[in-house]
Amino acid sequence: MAKIADKYLKVEPWAIVEEGFDVARNRVSESIFSLGNEYMGVRGYPDEGYNGDSLLGSYFNGLYEEVPVGAHYRGIIRSLRFMVNAVDWLYTRIKSEGEILNLARSHISGFTRRLDFKTGVYTRQFDWHLQSGKTIHLCFERIVSMTRSNLGAQRISFWSKDYEGPVEIQSGLDFSPLHEDQGRNFWEMIRKGEETGWMCATGKTVSTGNRLFSSFQIQLPDKAECRKEESNKYTGINFKLMLEPGKPSEIEKIVVNVAEKNREVSDNELWQNGVALAHSFSNRTFNDILAEQEAYWSKVWQASDITIEGDLENQQGIRFCIFQLYQTYRGDNPGFNIGAKGLTGEAYRGLAFWDTETYCLPFYLFNNPKAARSLLEFRYRSLQHALERAKDVDCEGAFYPIATIDGSESCDLWQHSNLQLQVGTAVGYGIWHYVKLAGDKSFLYKEGMEILIQLCRFNESRGQWGQQTGQFGYFGVMGPDEFQLMVNNNSYLNFMAKKLFEYTVQVAKEMEQQAPEKLADLMAMLNVSKEEFTQWERLASCMRIPLDEKTGIYEQHDGFFNMPHIDVDAIPVEQFPLYHHWSYDRLYRYDMVKQPDVLMFMFLYSSDFPVDAKRVNYEYYEPRCIHESSLSPSIHSIFAAELGKHEEAYRFFEFATRLDLDNYNRNTREGLHTTSIAAAWMNIVYGFGGLRSDGDTLLLQPSIPAHWDGYSFNFQHHNTVVSVKVDQEQLTVTTASGDPVELRIYDQTFTVDSEGVRLSLPASSRNVTDAHMQA
Amino acid sequence: MAKIADKYLKVEPWAIVEEGFDVARNRVSESIFSLGNEYMGVRGYPDEGYNGDSLLGSYFNGLYEEVPVGAHYRGIIRSLRFMVNAVDWLYTRIKSEGEILNLARSHISGFTRRLDFKTGVYTRQFDWHLQSGKTIHLCFERIVSMTRSNLGAQRISFWSKDYEGPVEIQSGLDFSPLHEDQGRNFWEMIRKGEETGWMCATGKTVSTGNRLFSSFQIQLPDKAECRKEESNKYTGINFKLMLEPGKPSEIEKIVVNVAEKNREVSDNELWQNGVALAHSFSNRTFNDILAEQEAYWSKVWQASDITIEGDLENQQGIRFCIFQLYQTYRGDNPGFNIGAKGLTGEAYRGLAFWDTETYCLPFYLFNNPKAARSLLEFRYRSLQHALERAKDVDCEGAFYPIATIDGSESCDLWQHSNLQLQVGTAVGYGIWHYVKLAGDKSFLYKEGMEILIQLCRFNESRGQWGQQTGQFGYFGVMGPDEFQLMVNNNSYLNFMAKKLFEYTVQVAKEMEQQAPEKLADLMAMLNVSKEEFTQWERLASCMRIPLDEKTGIYEQHDGFFNMPHIDVDAIPVEQFPLYHHWSYDRLYRYDMVKQPDVLMFMFLYSSDFPVDAKRVNYEYYEPRCIHESSLSPSIHSIFAAELGKHEEAYRFFEFATRLDLDNYNRNTREGLHTTSIAAAWMNIVYGFGGLRSDGDTLLLQPSIPAHWDGYSFNFQHHNTVVSVKVDQEQLTVTTASGDPVELRIYDQTFTVDSEGVRLSLPASSRNVTDAHMQA
Repeated sequence: MAKIADKYLKVEPWAIVEEGFDVARNRVSESIFSLGNEYMGVRGYPDEGYNGDSLLGSYFNGLYEEVPVGAHYRGIIRSLRFMVNAVDWLYTRIKSEGEILNLARSHISGFTRRLDFKTGVYTRQFDWHLQSGKTIHLCFERIVSMTRSNLGAQRISFWSKDYEGPVEIQSGLDFSPLHEDQGRNFWEMIRKGEETGWMCATGKTVSTGNRLFSSFQIQLPDKAECRKEESNKYTGINFKLMLEPGKPSEIEKIVVNVAEKNREVSDNELWQNGVALAHSFSNRTFNDILAEQEAYWSKVWQASDITIEGDLENQQGIRFCIFQLYQTYRGDNPGFNIGAKGLTGEAYRGLAFWDTETYCLPFYLFNNPKAARSLLEFRYRSLQHALERAKDVDCEGAFYPIATIDGSESCDLWQHSNLQLQVGTAVGYGIWHYVKLAGDKSFLYKEGMEILIQLCRFNESRGQWGQQTGQFGYFGVMGPDEFQLMVNNNSYLNFMAKKLFEYTVQVAKEMEQQAPEKLADLMAMLNVSKEEFTQWERLASCMRIPLDEKTGIYEQHDGFFNMPHIDVDAIPVEQFPLYHHWSYDRLYRYDMVKQPDVLMFMFLYSSDFPVDAKRVNYEYYEPRCIHESSLSPSIHSIFAAELGKHEEAYRFFEFATRLDLDNYNRNTREGLHTTSIAAAWMNIVYGFGGLRSDGDTLLLQPSIPAHWDGYSFNFQHHNTVVSVKVDQEQLTVTTASGDPVELRIYDQTFTVDSEGVRLSLPASSRNVTDAHMQA
Repeated sequence: MAKIADKYLKVEPWAIVEEGFDVARNRVSESIFSLGNEYMGVRGYPDEGYNGDSLLGSYFNGLYEEVPVGAHYRGIIRSLRFMVNAVDWLYTRIKSEGEILNLARSHISGFTRRLDFKTGVYTRQFDWHLQSGKTIHLCFERIVSMTRSNLGAQRISFWSKDYEGPVEIQSGLDFSPLHEDQGRNFWEMIRKGEETGWMCATGKTVSTGNRLFSSFQIQLPDKAECRKEESNKYTGINFKLMLEPGKPSEIEKIVVNVAEKNREVSDNELWQNGVALAHSFSNRTFNDILAEQEAYWSKVWQASDITIEGDLENQQGIRFCIFQLYQTYRGDNPGFNIGAKGLTGEAYRGLAFWDTETYCLPFYLFNNPKAARSLLEFRYRSLQHALERAKDVDCEGAFYPIATIDGSESCDLWQHSNLQLQVGTAVGYGIWHYVKLAGDKSFLYKEGMEILIQLCRFNESRGQWGQQTGQFGYFGVMGPDEFQLMVNNNSYLNFMAKKLFEYTVQVAKEMEQQAPEKLADLMAMLNVSKEEFTQWERLASCMRIPLDEKTGIYEQHDGFFNMPHIDVDAIPVEQFPLYHHWSYDRLYRYDMVKQPDVLMFMFLYSSDFPVDAKRVNYEYYEPRCIHESSLSPSIHSIFAAELGKHEEAYRFFEFATRLDLDNYNRNTREGLHTTSIAAAWMNIVYGFGGLRSDGDTLLLQPSIPAHWDGYSFNFQHHNTVVSVKVDQEQLTVTTASGDPVELRIYDQTFTVDSEGVRLSLPASSRNVTDAHMQA
């Protein structure tokens, strides 16, 4: 785990700040300074056009294109779907004295950019020195509204130091950006025109026919001349601003975008809807939008802030994580999921993985339960895709895709799309976890149970019986550890399937008592027999969980203990990441794991395992893990914290909150590690905070790294917001709002209210020398 | 193994005959009526152009093109190489009374075509009925010379029944045929022109720069007018023939082709060489070439014929096999190998597999030892590719490609190209087998040992030690049974590697005594230490060969015995081939094997295993085999014959000789199953003949199917040709030429001479009711 920070950005508690423009780092900054509101996202690219290394990325959640895949065999996908790069609604060109502003070519100074967590505004400013020696100061501000999903705003301010004369400005909507990964543009235009003072255009993706209405309005100073400009995939206006020394001047561009995937909405309807929506925002100013945005973020920080005292870098880092999580997903729009890079780049093609339920869901469960439910609804909406996919692979029930944008499988590597079954059990786990915490039986007894039944059917049909063991399990699979391909009885998958079967049968029994009619309806609709439940009960009880009884170590899969050993620490650091430096097949033949597998199920069902079992398994698997997934260290950190290995817990945490800010993996240029950002939240709340949400009562077992003076976090549980504050001496748990709540803290159960509980921190939770790490 | 014959062709002992033209079967016939001479091959497509379903295939051994592969990971090939479709040197167009002859549109009758095994001539004839009611009889003959690799010939005879007037003929060289699999043409023209009465053209493949000089001469009747025609990728002549009722008329096209892959030969040199070669054939007539061809085939049949009495279908079938084997490969041209479809189609892309050494080599060892050596020389010539490929996969020594045309890996499915290591051990086996039979120590002590050493290095570097077993073996591999992907300790591979190590060490010891200087030279050249030999000896002795001691059954790989069971016979017949009907991943999770794996190494090293060991392993694996490789049944037939299961042996043999003639796999349209054709030869000679060539003395243990009155075959051993004749009563073994030879026949050793040995056939080798099969 040799990771080295590329420290560059200024450390501030409530903002990201870059001072000076570094062409080599521009693309990394474009990712970091991304704005989004779950509906749409824009990378922090220069509004005014840029000729250097840049990814002009503007994305809309769920808008996708596809290209055919030359599939050799059955059950392998035939088209590759990906989030498509869409309209550049910030398109601006600025010219003065014949010079075009371009950071790659122009002479500038005093460059700074700033992303403010309290306002959600991305600001960029600098002095532009014309060849004549004159200087104009420019400031670009940008907002993607968190309260109005369709709304974006741009403000450009000019302050001339000594230049008197015009600046020529082009501003428009450009549908021609390349999708970089595919090397082409995927848009064709349906209609362009001006309506009630708004410049409007509708584009359509060439293969999938996804449509996007985009429109803007600019409030120009009175005297500005304005002329329309139109070309194939562009519509906009050209105008001049007259600058005078010392006198500020500004323009505001208000943008309304409407993405439409529903083919039943006609082009004309979409146009009319878009125009009406745009019209409703006429006369809205940048400052109006800014005020709403500030109010929104203020509420977020009130409910979800994490403070860290004595460690400004992680303080900034964790706020960046929380900020980006809200930007990526907030559950206000139906049918969305969380791409591995959110809306910040084309890597992973905008696809969502099992990370959603296993890594991201907890953040929403404890901060925004409505969003948590929306995430599960995505799976319900895409159930039909999963049913069809199961048929594609000769199975029954629902086979959820390992990677998806629209609910269909979009992974073209068959070893992942056909062998990795863990999304299904993760969805089952997500339902269980959501219902456990939110108590939402109306969801469980309808959508939830329908999904659970189809999941069980899949897991029954895909499973097989070992001839020698006589046990049930999964053959020919790849578990979460993607360094073990085509294995039999992966213990993670088997364990999770066992839990899925058990939970489904338990819900059926509960419904028999609590909601017999709903159960009867479901069974009739899905043609479920009682024998199916009996069979699932039996499969759960016959499930093979490979375990060495002598040592208490779970065997990751049949035969893992005989895999050739490699000393992970002896692999030269320049060989990482192994995916790039090793022959592909070589990854798969050692007792080396890419990311937690046995430890993962022991984390998800933490209360099922005594601490000793966690210890022996952690001590066996941790030295064998190379963390070639950014999701990996946080789980190890959570274990280390529970096992009292505090220094080790901190080491695994060390770069969690700043993975992108300090570009640890050297690939932030491709986009943010959005789901790892969720893991960073878990690392603090589940790791140091010791929260466990899988038992009968919420459990807190806080510890504190030696590096911090203190930290605090909040979480929502039913109607209550609980505040947890930890320093090197003590622990304070109070309710910030809502009813008193029952919590287990260390070994005792408390009813916590606004008065709170104040405890001394046990010695075992503090700053104890960690012999293992010191060695 | 539900295979159903599509019986269509006429059964004759010395020819393939089709009567009547069936558009639906034309493509199948094009494959069957292919001509070739190892240097070039043409499918039996209509010379005169055809608008129906046809694959106009003209191929040159080793001429290849390549397209880039979008490889995701290291160690996976970056370009896909394939045999390219080349010049249509038979190009002819025929027009009369404004009608163009085209079997898809013209009115014809009395169509027959014939491929004569004694002459090697492909003849096609029919009556062409013009719309005027007039009839012309046409006969097309075609030869690809077996004695002059560059030479082809075409004769077209016209016999007018009642038509008087001209036929207009175009004849030329057409470089524009599409490569069907890639959907494009890969040729650009370098030069065209007429030289010493020959029309010549040189083309070059666009990516690889492989060149092909092609030229032709037509001896025209005196009065014919002639005019040249040229377009981008075409050069030819147009002329008229005057027909008179009752008077025959004919044209002969003599063609000289020169394929050139060597970039050091300039375009001009190639042209001059081609022209000179063509000129040397000036005035050569079709009949001259025919006479040479007949003489060649006469010698072949003298040496290599197999007779079957009382079974005309198999008689025809086995001769077709022998005929095609000679057409595909005869070792006269260096640098060639045997593609899975020979030179008869684009399927498998013209690539050669491990079939060469394990399935084809025996035919050549016993019929044409020079050709056998040439096959091994192909591997020596491509050693550099194998050394580089080993580095690509982070190994040492030589990693021979699973599929190749030029020696480089050309398989784009990483699970095959990276996991299937059996080509290397097959090459080692081939060297051992060749040297054992041919006694060619000069090859062994130089090229052979160099290859062996590099093979051992690869097999050392790719192997690993099991943590629990402490044994050496191969992890993350796919054995010959391609239904078991990514397994550990495949017993075939482990066994073959053990043999490779042992043989190499044995050769080193032998060389120490017999050729110490050569050994020293090799060790110096390859920088081999004595410790390497010691290490290989150790690896051989520590090699894991999974075996259940109780039952004597070899476990195909670690964990195979626990794989879920499937009753192969219960799979509905319409689900075959499973590759097309099952989801890809589903193939890999049963105790079902695609083709022999354990049985394969027990066949190759037959004398290492007592018959009881063969029996238990056959009885375990045979019911689990679905024969989704055309190479599979013959190996089972050979085992069944040895185990006295004669009816079963015949059932597995049943379609071996007629796999393509009766289109059993319904894919003969793509080309012939050339390597399976070699397996058909083994099926008779090793199966019924009971030949075993891996022990100290050649062994014969003939048996006879109840369906036959008798059969005979010859084989060459050193300077001797041995004739074996078997009927239901007795067995006669004589030498047809050469020195007396020592043979073990059943349990006794004989010195066989021209007087021969005559034995009664043991009861156990005859017509015994086979309880297993009757049941």
